[in-house]
Amino acid sequence: MDVLDAIKGRRSIRKYRPDPVPDEVLEKVLEAVRWSPSWANTQCWEVIAIREPEIKAKAAEALPPGNPALSSLRDAPILLVLCAIRNLSGFKRGEAMTDKGDWFMFDIGLAMENLCLAAHSLGLGTVIIGLFDAKKIESLLGVPENLSVVAMTPLGYPQKEASPPKRKELVDFVHLERYRKSEGT
Amino acid sequence: MDVLDAIKGRRSIRKYRPDPVPDEVLEKVLEAVRWSPSWANTQCWEVIAIREPEIKAKAAEALPPGNPALSSLRDAPILLVLCAIRNLSGFKRGEAMTDKGDWFMFDIGLAMENLCLAAHSLGLGTVIIGLFDAKKIESLLGVPENLSVVAMTPLGYPQKEASPPKRKELVDFVHLERYRKSEGT
Repeated sequence: MDVLDAIKGRRSIRKYRPDPVPDEVLEKVLEAVRWSPSWANTQCWEVIAIREPEIKAKAAEALPPGNPALSSLRDAPILLVLCAIRNLSGFKRGEAMTDKGDWFMFDIGLAMENLCLAAHSLGLGTVIIGLFDAKKIESLLGVPENLSVVAMTPLGYPQKEASPPKRKELVDFVHLERYRKSEGT
Repeated sequence: MDVLDAIKGRRSIRKYRPDPVPDEVLEKVLEAVRWSPSWANTQCWEVIAIREPEIKAKAAEALPPGNPALSSLRDAPILLVLCAIRNLSGFKRGEAMTDKGDWFMFDIGLAMENLCLAAHSLGLGTVIIGLFDAKKIESLLGVPENLSVVAMTPLGYPQKEASPPKRKELVDFVHLERYRKSEGT
């Protein structure tokens, strides 16, 4: 699948078919994380791939009740949890190098987008979930103290296509030379 | 270009040819930002596209001396600066919804990866620069108080291919069911 088509065609998928995802397909999705860029090549990501229905069900308890992603976690055959090793990205010799402090959120964002695009190109759906009790997931999955669980996504074959939410136009967010509303690019 | 090939083939490009990037090509790269996913579709991104050599040269002064990206800023015909509107991503009715606080770093990460992959698929190079004095750039470009400059990248045609830095193997960062070193996926 072409890159620009994948970027425009990727949707947040909330309805999944229960069909299993073969190991070699999962591996391709994880390879996309592996090839993500990162701060000074620090590669702060760790990924937990969950297939066991019981663990997925327990993970779902960390989401707010009524979250539309709840059934995704139940139906999709895989749940991918992206964690970050803290104090690596954005740091040099233990010191934060910018006013942003830890850059793990940025780097996990880069990796998550690679993951979602790779999945989409393989016919799989994803939906990025950030709204949950990270402490609960960390305790459930035995994530060590020096890591943070950042975001997760179900991974599976979409039950149906989803329509895209409305986007700003380029003119709404692109500025030429300096910050000011552009008159087109 | 195929998605998985783009993800594996994208490199951080530090040597650029001065050849101009046509407007319609720049627009395709910016469309990739537009189609990024974001927290509750908040789309907190703003992009400043700089072609004026004088502004690019001043922006370069915000980088640490000796940074290998310095000549990239001078040689590449375009500099793209990604900013975030704060207090949007990760928030609901003005309140942070997770232990991460503002999610703008994650969302700008998602958008930046789309940008880099789109550029690569169009034959263009990028290199994500996070290490600079953001306050200096904000002042230079007249970025309003409620926004943060997050990262920037030159955009132009690569002078030569770059080789990839070493990556962890899947077995080094993938865990099955719970956090523990996996024995393969």
